[in-house]
Amino acid sequence: MLKYMEVNEISKQQLIKSLRSRSLKADESVTKSVADIIEKVKNEGDKALYELTERFDLVKLDSFEVTESDLNECIEKAGKEFIDALKEAKENIEEYHKKQKANGYIITKNNGVYLGQRVIPLERVGVYVPGGTAAYPSSVLMNVIPAKVAGVDEIVMVTPPDKNGGINPYIGAAAKIAGVDKIYKVGGAQAVAALAYGTETIIKVDKIVGPGNIFVAEAKKMVFGLVDIDMIAGPSEILVVADEKSNPVHVAADLMSQAEHDKIASAILVTTSKKLYEKVEEELKRQCEYLERKEIIKESLKNYGKAIICESIEECIDISNIIAPEHLELMVDEPMQYLGLVRNAGSVFLGRYTPEPIGDYFGGTNHVLPTSGTARFFSPLSVDSFIKKSSFIYYSKEAVKKDGRKIITMADKEGLTAHANSIKVRL
Amino acid sequence: MLKYMEVNEISKQQLIKSLRSRSLKADESVTKSVADIIEKVKNEGDKALYELTERFDLVKLDSFEVTESDLNECIEKAGKEFIDALKEAKENIEEYHKKQKANGYIITKNNGVYLGQRVIPLERVGVYVPGGTAAYPSSVLMNVIPAKVAGVDEIVMVTPPDKNGGINPYIGAAAKIAGVDKIYKVGGAQAVAALAYGTETIIKVDKIVGPGNIFVAEAKKMVFGLVDIDMIAGPSEILVVADEKSNPVHVAADLMSQAEHDKIASAILVTTSKKLYEKVEEELKRQCEYLERKEIIKESLKNYGKAIICESIEECIDISNIIAPEHLELMVDEPMQYLGLVRNAGSVFLGRYTPEPIGDYFGGTNHVLPTSGTARFFSPLSVDSFIKKSSFIYYSKEAVKKDGRKIITMADKEGLTAHANSIKVRL
Repeated sequence: MLKYMEVNEISKQQLIKSLRSRSLKADESVTKSVADIIEKVKNEGDKALYELTERFDLVKLDSFEVTESDLNECIEKAGKEFIDALKEAKENIEEYHKKQKANGYIITKNNGVYLGQRVIPLERVGVYVPGGTAAYPSSVLMNVIPAKVAGVDEIVMVTPPDKNGGINPYIGAAAKIAGVDKIYKVGGAQAVAALAYGTETIIKVDKIVGPGNIFVAEAKKMVFGLVDIDMIAGPSEILVVADEKSNPVHVAADLMSQAEHDKIASAILVTTSKKLYEKVEEELKRQCEYLERKEIIKESLKNYGKAIICESIEECIDISNIIAPEHLELMVDEPMQYLGLVRNAGSVFLGRYTPEPIGDYFGGTNHVLPTSGTARFFSPLSVDSFIKKSSFIYYSKEAVKKDGRKIITMADKEGLTAHANSIKVRL
Repeated sequence: MLKYMEVNEISKQQLIKSLRSRSLKADESVTKSVADIIEKVKNEGDKALYELTERFDLVKLDSFEVTESDLNECIEKAGKEFIDALKEAKENIEEYHKKQKANGYIITKNNGVYLGQRVIPLERVGVYVPGGTAAYPSSVLMNVIPAKVAGVDEIVMVTPPDKNGGINPYIGAAAKIAGVDKIYKVGGAQAVAALAYGTETIIKVDKIVGPGNIFVAEAKKMVFGLVDIDMIAGPSEILVVADEKSNPVHVAADLMSQAEHDKIASAILVTTSKKLYEKVEEELKRQCEYLERKEIIKESLKNYGKAIICESIEECIDISNIIAPEHLELMVDEPMQYLGLVRNAGSVFLGRYTPEPIGDYFGGTNHVLPTSGTARFFSPLSVDSFIKKSSFIYYSKEAVKKDGRKIITMADKEGLTAHANSIKVRL
């Protein structure tokens, strides 16, 4: 089911090209209708939200607010086993993210000079959570917990109502456990617009995060600049580096765990063993049959699944660095010995017993990761995503006297005489 | 010259609206021609660069490379006074930015579990430096030094050639002192395209930073995603908080130091003293006359200059937090007492002897700052801008046994059976 290639310069280049050809680009009709929706919400506020919810979610609401008692009901419905797992996951995620809290600093110098940097949490953050079949309570934890740890004052969640005007109970339960401050039943581009511009009910936020369909993604792009957004998630990848000792049952299962997300997801096996590849092929066919999303998996593997045969684990990692996958599994012994070679990967899953879903749900690392090769320059969602920095500097009269001339020289060479003037008037 | 307002709810809202109305949005003809240029460079490489350089920079080059001997000539031409100032500025900027270096971390747990985060410098960064009248050597330092401190492997600078095929000597000198690895004489959208896609001569980078005109800004937006970019700089602001003891000569000089940048720059005085405002008005008129860019200053002050009268310094800072200025001067006694109130500002200049140009050139803080109200959620350019993070996690067989059931429960509730399967095959 995987496209077979042996590694060489040409195959490397082809590989990159084929991955780049995957795209979630919105067509013009989407762009146009999203622009219209945003304009409507901006101008008409809540009224527009009620109308659009009726049109797209096919439900007439009296209020967007999800109440405390709604949430308690969600917890009830979700069941104890799920809630217990969620709570333990939350603890793990919190523990991992707390280490990311950055401190400001100050430098003190001669002549009374001091300067430094402060770290300040964002005031208000909006988290988009899809409804329907892509309703992922784990995403609630992954987006909300880092914002909480960062110290964000107010976290607002938006999620589309179902046809009865309720919300997915697992989503509601996760929101309550994660500590979301307010939840509104509104989805799509209209929810993004409400968060960016504010309405009578929904207060304007500073940043919008969370996954969504093409309408949500397009709306986020359009309001970027007015508010900050997280990455626009592209199609995701798993790259499994495996050797002759790797268990083909495991390898196949892990490749499919990513392939099931999307027809344009990409599952890539990079291995030193052609024999392993052959066994993995058999396993893919066998296991695929009993998985719910087998149609998606088959199409994803057919179009973007690959097996690449290399000479050594080092060469496997070389390939991985070129692809810069969202998820990288290093299914080898002593995996820490190889971690230093990994330069471009969102998250690395080490050894033979760390399938990627451990990171999706439970282990503690964030599952919002750079996709489509952007791990070359983007980072996982983290506490840093919910803070900003602000610098400060103090010069005394004596310090200006000492350094003033040099500053004037530099300003003059740039032709900025008003810059120079602000120093001159103080000398 | 400043528009006078007393503070109230309406004036606050008007203020924000008027600042938002400033815009650097490219019109369609710019967008179209930038798209064409990018396509041409992507397809034709160096050949396109030579052609476009001849068309736009009116010079026929034999080579884009700036040699070591060209740079030594720049140093010569720039003169000792300038070079000495530049070197001292570099030391200050380096000292300030070194404190920003982040460390990775690791958490070790029971059952062999460990997880953590690594901090990895970007491999290659491109720095765009404008030529002509907006050639700012200080920008070279501000963009290159944090990348150097971050540990970027290769820093490539691009800057348009002048009509004789040379480069601005101050820019060349700053590049040499900052430690740029390679410099190419190419500018405009074609330079951005070359950095994003690579050509025979210019190697593809991971991130493009640095200021530029509307064509450069538009090109950066278009290649974003393929590479990372810094912020798209909008019109800039200075907001001066002053009291009755503030020196109107200083206040006026500082307001104009920002106003001279751009007709749509915004200089705002927020003060507790109407008397001060009146004196500042006189000073603006007087000092303006002897400044080179007085036409720009007058237009900027006329359209976007404001004086806002408040009851207290606390209220002044309140206004400032709403505006979220790029530069904030707190021209008061004991300014550190007020810093905690400042929530939204790119850089804060404290006290009566710290005019903003100290930070532009010399003090050590970065001058690449969030503009147009984006200090609510964006940060100054920093070492963080040139690194990425990558997480890792290890689970042992025992740990999967212990936690596997919970992960399966969570995956099942999301309908992702292939996720659950990757755990099941290991139990």
